[in-house]
Amino acid sequence: MSTSDSDDREEGLMLQPKFDANGLVTCVAVDAATSEVLMVAHMNEEALRRTIASGEAWYYSRSRGALWRKGESSGHVQRVVEMRVDCDQDAILIRVEQTGAACHTGRHSCFYRKVEAVDGGAKLSFVDADRKFDPKAVYKK
Amino acid sequence: MSTSDSDDREEGLMLQPKFDANGLVTCVAVDAATSEVLMVAHMNEEALRRTIASGEAWYYSRSRGALWRKGESSGHVQRVVEMRVDCDQDAILIRVEQTGAACHTGRHSCFYRKVEAVDGGAKLSFVDADRKFDPKAVYKK
Repeated sequence: MSTSDSDDREEGLMLQPKFDANGLVTCVAVDAATSEVLMVAHMNEEALRRTIASGEAWYYSRSRGALWRKGESSGHVQRVVEMRVDCDQDAILIRVEQTGAACHTGRHSCFYRKVEAVDGGAKLSFVDADRKFDPKAVYKK
Repeated sequence: MSTSDSDDREEGLMLQPKFDANGLVTCVAVDAATSEVLMVAHMNEEALRRTIASGEAWYYSRSRGALWRKGESSGHVQRVVEMRVDCDQDAILIRVEQTGAACHTGRHSCFYRKVEAVDGGAKLSFVDADRKFDPKAVYKK
């Protein structure tokens, strides 16, 4: 990319998402009320377009290879209060009002465990083990 | 992945990062004081190991194809106050004390523009145009 392309993407007022080789940008969803990071997911061009147009979060599931309206199975939708884009436009940040809980495990946020250094390695511990819903009941299939 | 592998990764206390095909996990850095999202970047196994061991953020630059200690050119290091991992361990969240500013453009956060729907498309506007430093002065080469 030339310097002027880069300048335009970083300083301009046009949305020019920089999709990766798989056609995706990273999206971080944070709780609009508390700023807590709820989840990290991906959007393809269509998911991004639908999110902007509808004001509800759409993602692209890499594991399922499919467009995915957040909450379509669980009812735990995300209403987008604000969307931002980062400097080089390969990441999106959305502030959302989360119905239910963001994580498929039932926790409010996907980041429910912390990582601590121990003996040259690392261990995890729960900072929020509390499930807001029972995933077995919500995702029955 | 079998159900038990998935359960172990999601409910266990062992750090088992799920690196993508390029050997990377996504990392979100937030301001430890305000919870503001500062940047989204990537870590390979070595960057993650060094971050845990040193308490300072290391990343892997996809554009440069190189391990990268945040602040090595600019002096704008990130001291890691807390690290978390998400449910399926393909994303890392770090709460950091940011020296200087996180964004290479000089802004405090990389997310200095918001995206708004307009006529079936989108436009950007600056929410924080203020540069904490002059990138031309900091990154001279």
